[in-house]
Amino acid sequence: MSEANGTSVNLKTSPVGGGGVPLADVVARQLETLLEAGNYDGAKLLLQPVQEVDIAEAIGTLPRTLQALAFRLLPKDEAIEVYEYLDPSVQQTLLDRLRSGEVLELVEKMSPDDRVRLFDELPAKVVRRLLAELSPAERRVTAQLLGYEAETAGRLMTTEFIDLKEFHSAAQALELVRRRARETETVYSLYVTDGSRHLTGILSLRDLVVADPQARIGDVMTREVVSVSTETDQEEVARAIQRYDFLAVPVVDREQRLVGIVTVDDVIDVIEQEATRDLYAAGAVQAGDEDDYFQSNLFTVARRRVVWLSVLVVANGFTSEVIALQGKVLSQVVVLAAFIPLLIGTGGNVGAQSSTVVIRGLSTQRIQSLGATRTILREAVAGALLGVLMLVVVVPWAWWRGEGPLVGLSVGMSLLAITTLAATAGAALPLLFDRLGLDPALMSAPFITTATDVAGVFIYLQTAGWLIGRLGTG
Amino acid sequence: MSEANGTSVNLKTSPVGGGGVPLADVVARQLETLLEAGNYDGAKLLLQPVQEVDIAEAIGTLPRTLQALAFRLLPKDEAIEVYEYLDPSVQQTLLDRLRSGEVLELVEKMSPDDRVRLFDELPAKVVRRLLAELSPAERRVTAQLLGYEAETAGRLMTTEFIDLKEFHSAAQALELVRRRARETETVYSLYVTDGSRHLTGILSLRDLVVADPQARIGDVMTREVVSVSTETDQEEVARAIQRYDFLAVPVVDREQRLVGIVTVDDVIDVIEQEATRDLYAAGAVQAGDEDDYFQSNLFTVARRRVVWLSVLVVANGFTSEVIALQGKVLSQVVVLAAFIPLLIGTGGNVGAQSSTVVIRGLSTQRIQSLGATRTILREAVAGALLGVLMLVVVVPWAWWRGEGPLVGLSVGMSLLAITTLAATAGAALPLLFDRLGLDPALMSAPFITTATDVAGVFIYLQTAGWLIGRLGTG
Repeated sequence: MSEANGTSVNLKTSPVGGGGVPLADVVARQLETLLEAGNYDGAKLLLQPVQEVDIAEAIGTLPRTLQALAFRLLPKDEAIEVYEYLDPSVQQTLLDRLRSGEVLELVEKMSPDDRVRLFDELPAKVVRRLLAELSPAERRVTAQLLGYEAETAGRLMTTEFIDLKEFHSAAQALELVRRRARETETVYSLYVTDGSRHLTGILSLRDLVVADPQARIGDVMTREVVSVSTETDQEEVARAIQRYDFLAVPVVDREQRLVGIVTVDDVIDVIEQEATRDLYAAGAVQAGDEDDYFQSNLFTVARRRVVWLSVLVVANGFTSEVIALQGKVLSQVVVLAAFIPLLIGTGGNVGAQSSTVVIRGLSTQRIQSLGATRTILREAVAGALLGVLMLVVVVPWAWWRGEGPLVGLSVGMSLLAITTLAATAGAALPLLFDRLGLDPALMSAPFITTATDVAGVFIYLQTAGWLIGRLGTG
Repeated sequence: MSEANGTSVNLKTSPVGGGGVPLADVVARQLETLLEAGNYDGAKLLLQPVQEVDIAEAIGTLPRTLQALAFRLLPKDEAIEVYEYLDPSVQQTLLDRLRSGEVLELVEKMSPDDRVRLFDELPAKVVRRLLAELSPAERRVTAQLLGYEAETAGRLMTTEFIDLKEFHSAAQALELVRRRARETETVYSLYVTDGSRHLTGILSLRDLVVADPQARIGDVMTREVVSVSTETDQEEVARAIQRYDFLAVPVVDREQRLVGIVTVDDVIDVIEQEATRDLYAAGAVQAGDEDDYFQSNLFTVARRRVVWLSVLVVANGFTSEVIALQGKVLSQVVVLAAFIPLLIGTGGNVGAQSSTVVIRGLSTQRIQSLGATRTILREAVAGALLGVLMLVVVVPWAWWRGEGPLVGLSVGMSLLAITTLAATAGAALPLLFDRLGLDPALMSAPFITTATDVAGVFIYLQTAGWLIGRLGTG
């Protein structure tokens, strides 16, 4: 976490402002000109007031041949922070182009959590070589983090935190914070452990600054602590920090020993990543490495979509078969076909609405306030209600278009059945999947829509066939 | 922001863990029993180790008659924090049931940003009365915040921050932090202003703790500061804090005077809220007060969906009209109708994929790395490619089902046209809306799908009609 560094840029004119040219682009272009002219002092001066994340983005857009050159201009401490912000592909380019001594120093000084994220992207051979060259302490920490499963607190956490003892005085503790401030990720949450590294309490730097210098830490700390385990899913870690407005949450191992902390800045990225996954599922795009989507090539783009699309085409195939097999009804009254898209479209939209609300409710855990049974019931009634509202417009129009009651009545009866069914399925299927331990987003809009199509067409043509038997084809 | 308070609950067994009974429910049930038995000391003891947000949720689930009773048991300082976490409806119930002296003390002591959020929900008459009774300082601040537009930095910010002067020594500054720590929202980001309240620098409490006690603040602070304006959209504020890993960002007015700060905990809620909006748009659910969705009644549920649904039904109506007007082609070869759902379904899915990726890319601003023109082009080619892949399966099957080349060829030619068109429109329309300053999410999956339907059916039946002219009806 960086706190108070800054650029001279007010956000009104920066990339975050939406309009205008992104700041990193401007910096990159000036930087390229200066580097090509060999004006390295000018380049240093240019980068001096720029935030690390903006420098990283600027270096990322430079030609590959200039990236290492630009990177070498940075002061050592800043270089590490900039490196941690770089895209994995640029990180790899730099590893190839820097001298092995430079690489080692860089990797040795990275925070353990960022180092693990880098190692995840590197070829196994390179990782083994780098691990072997790390100092024993850093190697142990890195191997430990690499041992946790992806997307758990263990992978997300950093092992750089400040731990105090209950017998420290507030003044001693403050001195310790002062000494260790440079090397830890945050100094604002402080952890108190006993002789066997069990977490016994927590206090904030605010508490410490306010406390009487002579007070014992054991007396000013809070003994009741919210912690997560190394195996806790990253989404749960995010929810905990969000719910309690924490700056960091401690991570304990199975023996309840403090092994790391997860900070709020990492958690924001998790929340965004999980939201993107839900959205992609709603759009029938396979989840993956969302960060790189706009940098990936056409075949990756197509590959991430073709699986879902094929599943949906097969499902649509059932709809076609239902229609083909009921061809007799259609050939008697061709205009019935005109209302098929409207019926399945409306059913699909109602189903999508229900599944969207339920899937989001499961993600944000707000659904707990209503409960599963009442949610399904509410959605079913809402679906029927929406069906009735649509009837008022659609039935007279279908009646007129069909030049008689047959089409109007078929459309009306099946529309009501379809919307009720779609809303019920849209709510029940994600809840069922969640109960079974599967990802509810698999039952998102595209799947619900397509499943509704088959049922909708079947209900419609059955109803019409039955009505033709009673009313004739008028 | 609270930092180090805690509950005795490890998250493995808490509500955030997913399984099991939510913590707040357990607390609420025990609390209800104790209150009904008149055991107020027991209730106090029960609540003592529980986090404020959990107490707020527990009070929210109590019967209304017990809510004020439970609330009065809390120590004063904690009561204010709990009140800030309560749902607006429970906040109102308490306002009605507490004595006016109690109400005034509560509202007076709330943070300005939370107070403004409460006032937003209250009837105008109540707000006017409460405003009149506030102390002049709090009244001025509240009126000022209420004057900013909804969803801007001005509305989100708190006016409680610590401002230092450049001539302070580090020791003086630390003493100031110590004195003001209780009343400010965060002590970790410190702001330096000149005589006319212009922001001249920033430093973190970490910098201050590490600094030589004799050092001048003007010499240890960072002069280049990222700030936002009171009018900056809350989503941009969130992006800034996320991008730079800040704990807080300063807010300046038009004259560049420091008027407030936005902290990271508020920003996490904004990020989640914006993600919910994008998702709801993708599911054709109208955005609104997402927090309350699972607590709102059936009519609110239906109302939030009926508008979008009606728009889509009307759009579907055009599809029906296109089919009805081309009835002659269908009556010649009825089996053509069987492939309408497959064609418009596939077109809709391809369009939804493109619009999902583009809308999310616009939200997270990752799309900037590719640019608008190249994005549209890439999506168009991806759509065509996906169309070709689908052809391989669909054409032979349609050929067989139609007992001759006519249906197979019609389906094949139109499928390719539809997927290409859908992907292009799915990418281009959100980008166009964004360029025009409209919300790109308006062009999300449901709209793209329905628009594709009309075009798809038209292309399909035109192609079939043209082929019938050349091949006959076989």
